[in-house]
Amino acid sequence: MASKKYVYMFSEGDASMRNLLGGKGANLAEMTRLGLPIPQGFTVTTEACNEYYANEKTISQEIVEQIEASLVKLEEISGKKFGDPKNPLLVSVRSGARASMPGMMDTILNLGLNDVSVEGLAESTGNPRFAYDSYRRFIQMFSDVVMEISKDKFEKILAEVKEQKGKQADTDLTAEDLKEVIGRYKTLYKQEKGSDFPQDPKKQLMEAITAVFRSWDNPRAIVYRRMHDIPSSWGTAVNVQMMVFGNMGDTSGTGVAFTRNPATGEKKIFGEYLINAQGEDVVAGIRTPKPISTLEEDMPEIYQQFMEIATKLENHYKDMQDMEFTIENKKLYFLQTRNGKRTAPAALKIAVDMVNEGMITEEEALLKVDPKQLDQLLHPAFDSKALKAAKPIAKGLPASPGAAAGRIYFTAEDAKAAGDRGERVILVRTETSPEDIEGMVAAQGILTGRGGMTSHAAVVARGMGKCCVAGCGEIKISEDDKMFVAQGVTCKEGDYVSLDGSTGLVYGEDIPTVEPEITGDFAVFMSWADKVRKLKVRANADTPKDAKNAVEFGAEGIGLCRTEHMFFEEDRIPKVRKMILSDSEEERRAALDELLPVQREDFKGIFEAMGERPVTIRLLDPPLHEFLPHDDESIAALAQQMGISVSELKAKVTSLQEFNPMMGHRGCRLAVTYPEIAEMQARAIIEAAVEVKKEKGLNIVPEIMIPLVGEVKEYNYVRDVVVKVADEVIQSSGVELNYLVGTMIEIPRACLTADEIAKEAEFFSFGTNDLTQMTFGFSRDDAGKFLESYYDKQIYEFDPFARLDQTGVGQLVEMAVQKGKSARPNIKLGICGEHGGDPSSVEFCHRVGLNYVSCSPFRVPIARLAAAQAVVSEGDNLGQK
Amino acid sequence: MASKKYVYMFSEGDASMRNLLGGKGANLAEMTRLGLPIPQGFTVTTEACNEYYANEKTISQEIVEQIEASLVKLEEISGKKFGDPKNPLLVSVRSGARASMPGMMDTILNLGLNDVSVEGLAESTGNPRFAYDSYRRFIQMFSDVVMEISKDKFEKILAEVKEQKGKQADTDLTAEDLKEVIGRYKTLYKQEKGSDFPQDPKKQLMEAITAVFRSWDNPRAIVYRRMHDIPSSWGTAVNVQMMVFGNMGDTSGTGVAFTRNPATGEKKIFGEYLINAQGEDVVAGIRTPKPISTLEEDMPEIYQQFMEIATKLENHYKDMQDMEFTIENKKLYFLQTRNGKRTAPAALKIAVDMVNEGMITEEEALLKVDPKQLDQLLHPAFDSKALKAAKPIAKGLPASPGAAAGRIYFTAEDAKAAGDRGERVILVRTETSPEDIEGMVAAQGILTGRGGMTSHAAVVARGMGKCCVAGCGEIKISEDDKMFVAQGVTCKEGDYVSLDGSTGLVYGEDIPTVEPEITGDFAVFMSWADKVRKLKVRANADTPKDAKNAVEFGAEGIGLCRTEHMFFEEDRIPKVRKMILSDSEEERRAALDELLPVQREDFKGIFEAMGERPVTIRLLDPPLHEFLPHDDESIAALAQQMGISVSELKAKVTSLQEFNPMMGHRGCRLAVTYPEIAEMQARAIIEAAVEVKKEKGLNIVPEIMIPLVGEVKEYNYVRDVVVKVADEVIQSSGVELNYLVGTMIEIPRACLTADEIAKEAEFFSFGTNDLTQMTFGFSRDDAGKFLESYYDKQIYEFDPFARLDQTGVGQLVEMAVQKGKSARPNIKLGICGEHGGDPSSVEFCHRVGLNYVSCSPFRVPIARLAAAQAVVSEGDNLGQK
Repeated sequence: MASKKYVYMFSEGDASMRNLLGGKGANLAEMTRLGLPIPQGFTVTTEACNEYYANEKTISQEIVEQIEASLVKLEEISGKKFGDPKNPLLVSVRSGARASMPGMMDTILNLGLNDVSVEGLAESTGNPRFAYDSYRRFIQMFSDVVMEISKDKFEKILAEVKEQKGKQADTDLTAEDLKEVIGRYKTLYKQEKGSDFPQDPKKQLMEAITAVFRSWDNPRAIVYRRMHDIPSSWGTAVNVQMMVFGNMGDTSGTGVAFTRNPATGEKKIFGEYLINAQGEDVVAGIRTPKPISTLEEDMPEIYQQFMEIATKLENHYKDMQDMEFTIENKKLYFLQTRNGKRTAPAALKIAVDMVNEGMITEEEALLKVDPKQLDQLLHPAFDSKALKAAKPIAKGLPASPGAAAGRIYFTAEDAKAAGDRGERVILVRTETSPEDIEGMVAAQGILTGRGGMTSHAAVVARGMGKCCVAGCGEIKISEDDKMFVAQGVTCKEGDYVSLDGSTGLVYGEDIPTVEPEITGDFAVFMSWADKVRKLKVRANADTPKDAKNAVEFGAEGIGLCRTEHMFFEEDRIPKVRKMILSDSEEERRAALDELLPVQREDFKGIFEAMGERPVTIRLLDPPLHEFLPHDDESIAALAQQMGISVSELKAKVTSLQEFNPMMGHRGCRLAVTYPEIAEMQARAIIEAAVEVKKEKGLNIVPEIMIPLVGEVKEYNYVRDVVVKVADEVIQSSGVELNYLVGTMIEIPRACLTADEIAKEAEFFSFGTNDLTQMTFGFSRDDAGKFLESYYDKQIYEFDPFARLDQTGVGQLVEMAVQKGKSARPNIKLGICGEHGGDPSSVEFCHRVGLNYVSCSPFRVPIARLAAAQAVVSEGDNLGQK
Repeated sequence: MASKKYVYMFSEGDASMRNLLGGKGANLAEMTRLGLPIPQGFTVTTEACNEYYANEKTISQEIVEQIEASLVKLEEISGKKFGDPKNPLLVSVRSGARASMPGMMDTILNLGLNDVSVEGLAESTGNPRFAYDSYRRFIQMFSDVVMEISKDKFEKILAEVKEQKGKQADTDLTAEDLKEVIGRYKTLYKQEKGSDFPQDPKKQLMEAITAVFRSWDNPRAIVYRRMHDIPSSWGTAVNVQMMVFGNMGDTSGTGVAFTRNPATGEKKIFGEYLINAQGEDVVAGIRTPKPISTLEEDMPEIYQQFMEIATKLENHYKDMQDMEFTIENKKLYFLQTRNGKRTAPAALKIAVDMVNEGMITEEEALLKVDPKQLDQLLHPAFDSKALKAAKPIAKGLPASPGAAAGRIYFTAEDAKAAGDRGERVILVRTETSPEDIEGMVAAQGILTGRGGMTSHAAVVARGMGKCCVAGCGEIKISEDDKMFVAQGVTCKEGDYVSLDGSTGLVYGEDIPTVEPEITGDFAVFMSWADKVRKLKVRANADTPKDAKNAVEFGAEGIGLCRTEHMFFEEDRIPKVRKMILSDSEEERRAALDELLPVQREDFKGIFEAMGERPVTIRLLDPPLHEFLPHDDESIAALAQQMGISVSELKAKVTSLQEFNPMMGHRGCRLAVTYPEIAEMQARAIIEAAVEVKKEKGLNIVPEIMIPLVGEVKEYNYVRDVVVKVADEVIQSSGVELNYLVGTMIEIPRACLTADEIAKEAEFFSFGTNDLTQMTFGFSRDDAGKFLESYYDKQIYEFDPFARLDQTGVGQLVEMAVQKGKSARPNIKLGICGEHGGDPSSVEFCHRVGLNYVSCSPFRVPIARLAAAQAVVSEGDNLGQK
């Protein structure tokens, strides 16, 4: 049986083998193929990594043998021998996954040194200081990365020796000083591990390769993968590369550089280097490197050669390159190249510039910007230098993106008063309720101790485009004392706090923020996306203000207008409560009559803002108890206001409470029990459309959406209620008006019976938030308690509420699409769950044949780009992600 | 275009046309075909009823014309003319659905009478008293049933006239008296409706037919259909039949009879009749009828003829018949026959007897018992010692067998409220009417002061398998004062009373009840079922006692052993709480160590009770907060017991609370976050199996079930935890032991990914309770608030928690079966939701290919029979229910 090939020499691969060799390995092979100066080596494949995990975390004999055979080839190429006491071959061992995972994986340099070969190295290079420095570095890295002995213990020894010898910099240490360091390092190693530092280079190598594989599954890697949609099944490759040395003296050095500026996109080489250093010194930030431009003076020939190769690489890869290089005794080596990470403005500028330079096509340009990055352009961010210096004091849920800093206040009133005084305000609440709206409006950001991504605070903040960290259980809030405590830090009313709504981090200080700048590149780039995409993009918007905002972000309609959000506003909530607390249909109708003109005005405002773009309005959805106060004080106030006794009101509030509100009396179930609510809303929608048509001549076609349907008869019942009122209003208005009635598909049973429902419903809008909850059987608000364990144990790799679960939930969506189209071929299909703004989910929506996605206004550009990328990728994508 | 036939003369149909003509219509046609003495008439079909509902509740012109044409034919047959002033044709109008719905539909007699024809009738019969009595009855019935004027108002007039005239019985009233009654009736009618009582017979007829159609959808009918799995799409037929008169004097009469005793099954004619009466008098229970045996003396020839026809009908239908007859001037007519309702013991005896008589086969016999009825056999009877000491305070008719004890309530509302509070309830009424259904459902037993064995209370109670003592005239009921007096004993609302439905005795105290004894017929009958069925039947049992019980009812294993039920017991709950409130894994493990021996003993007891029958044990399922106290007092007690502060404990309890516990941290999610709990349980299970094997030589193969799985990796994680412990225990025991690990399928996503899961899981058990909740998106605990509206509006016709929703949930189950078998062809498939004991759901489980159903021990016989019926019906059932 021919054995599988698990190890490739650099000369055996090329750039197309990224999945097998990882990004670093494939690029090293490609650069070898291009004839560039690359220290040679070999790559252990990602398949070997998967094999390692399949094989109870051991590297099989077969793979060990292939590694050893490649090592022999490398010895031949280098003319040195691994473990040779006179002329030892030294190697670096580095991870390299398919997608770049910076900072997640660990690197080991100078592997192959031991007590004997270090002397050979000193002799053969004639540079003992260099040899002992290399050995010192190797022991420290190997002990830290492979053997998990804290790096600090080694740094402490190094610092002690420096102090003792009166030396400032590491480079001031002599060979003799370093020998002493090495001696103490080895003693420390033996103390910690109970055995001597390993002297067998092959053992060192296998331990290092194993450590790389192991690090694929460390917690940081898991978190990073979850954040970046990288499946654990990809695995990492390992690159074993002959060492070249930047630490051989003043004619040596090492650096990193980008072909264009990664922060601005400017077409100018950007980078820095250190003389007499190894790679880790540059990124570690211990010494301050010099800008790459000074290399032109220091080593003009090297600089010339470097620039030629950099240009060649950018032209070859058709993308901005991020390169690592080392100069060993005036000889230049490239250690790595890859497409460089960049900020959102840089990404846009580079993409647009490269099209203008004729380097790439518009379609290729579309793939060069990560849609999620666009978020950066639309919200304030922290000043990056200030952020580096800041230390978070707690972490909550990243409920609404952006950055905010201000003084903390614990009640809506205090927040509003401070805002009126001109202060920047952060509103801190255990949880928010409709009473807090004004405080939320006044605040720069909102921090809550309880509640999930769909809690009141989160939903309202997202709608306002306001930064919010929700469910931050780590802080102990005392609203009475107007303070909170986090990691021992006490923050009192008026203290400054900063929130990062994109990461969920909370800082106990005032970090300056910068407003996003939207450049001309953005408009040009988005116009290319709009030309290409097939999916329409709508926004979820509940107010005329949101609607205007949405149109500015390029929304082509409203996919979800949540009528209940109008109910929460200060002037409406008393009327809503009156309606809820009615004892009879008559009382309820009287209260609804008061709400009718208010709702009608809301809808008019939205229709006017949207012009003739489609607007989907969802009938009342949340359980009624969400509109009622729950604490004693508010109940007492409401009772007085309504002229009933506190105990009477309490009894009513209690009777409306539910065991599982998520699965309770809500959605169309409200319209089935209280059809008069749906009647009022239908009337308000149609009257508004009629008036706007009369007043502005706009041809409005409202889409009325019935939520939470699980059975066609349920839909029919509510639809009949809506149609009856709508037709009456239209007839008596004397105006011609079309409207659609459809449903949200958010209950598994609706997917299973979508053919029946589609016979009656003119459109489907997938409510994938609820559909995800029902399909997985867990509520978003409660899942926080166990999902962390699920991520740690790699049961789930992604948050199914952020990224649509295509395996399970997606199966139901596809089924509903298929069944829906079979019953009504021209049915309008959209999605209005939060997945509508997630790129991988947008790609899915494109693939299964939806007509549009709808997301919060700020995510509209993301969805537009993701929809375009779905089209561009379709051609060359064979179903693998 | 040939028009559809909506009306059939009795001579045009036969028994096979039940779906079209309804049960009553088909049988009237069949009896006509057999040449029996049947007053002729015609049937308006069930399709006409559906047409009525499709057509906005109007009867189309086409149908009206067919009815009129049939009326002409009937006039020809009878030689009388509808509305003729001299010799009027009078008819009855009666509902007749496909399945018998006693008491739910309304009947009108003597239709066709008016102010003129009543005189013609008086003249042509020479019996003015009869004529006016008929007209009086007609006005009353028509006004009540069709025009919805309260019957009480008419009864009041009748009572006033009787008192005024000094008459006791209705029959004492003279023609003149009755004319006065009629005059007052007509005045009342005009007061109520604002118009005169309708004089046009055709208008009377169309109104009456419409009323029958309308009554198909009255709330009582909807409740009845829901209880008996009858879809609303069946509709009802309407029978229009020439009147014959039992109220023409002492040579006339009317009665009902059964070919065998419907209470005991004894092969002896059973029934009762009234001289000089119309049918409604017998069933209404106003006068006390005579037993059928006395007819032999009263009218020997008629009795002879009656017996011959009864025997002929039973032989023809091969089932016990329930017949209505009328004697008009010494001429016998049959008005209806149908398969008679019977008690469970009677059903068993009749089925077994008929097989022994050679009338039917064993398989046919299996279809003659409604599985739900078997429940009656399994209800408690009085403890015989306690009964001996008790002294009855009254005796009524033994209307529905069984024993019941509880607090008395005098209205359906009060009974329902008390039932909801968890009380045992006896509903006491002068007589019951369909309005009382909900109170009857809530009650353990029913006691009425008036009415016979065929009164509403008796019929409905027998259908429900609920104890009933009817017609207990000895007690003086005051519904207004909520009390009754019997033999000087006063029983007030809330007092305890006991009823013996098999003897008719009433006791003024709370007599303890014991489990029923099962007759020889039962064993014989069930052995036939067991021979035929293919599904295995297991029980859900959590304790050794339940397990023993289950085996006695014929369970072939345990399909669901809920380990948490053991946790709730008084001696364990402190240990469980200690475990839950642990701050670290170490503390938790220490607490679990205390629980281990307790759980092991539980499992040993269960294994010993079950012998080598399979036992499926589910790992801990409910959210942990369910085990903690929530009120202040209990929290304080627990805090003291645990030696921590109240505020500390409260904080812990609060931190465990969830927004939606149903979708929270429960099921296998507990084992993912706290694998040590699953370890303890796996150890307890396997150690118990090993010990029972060592001690008793029983070869136990435990089935360990992981609940709430939605993703195969989640299953694998917990499975690995279980297998590791299990294998260690087995290895160190030195005993050979097999065990299975599988999962509950109760999350939609588990169905969608069942192929992946089946690769790893050795069995699936469908948890259709949770699966129903997730698929419909409503929680069982909260749905009560809106499901009533859904039933009223006919959005749902059945309680999906009682009867499996085959359309939606069933689709997921079938998908999971298919996917599961594709990945593991020999996978063991069962169901352990409450649907496992519901006959229509059992039929579904048989059809989709499950291996077993599991239900509560008392429902095991029901499931055994339903499983056998599924096999028998398979042949001649073309998928219609």
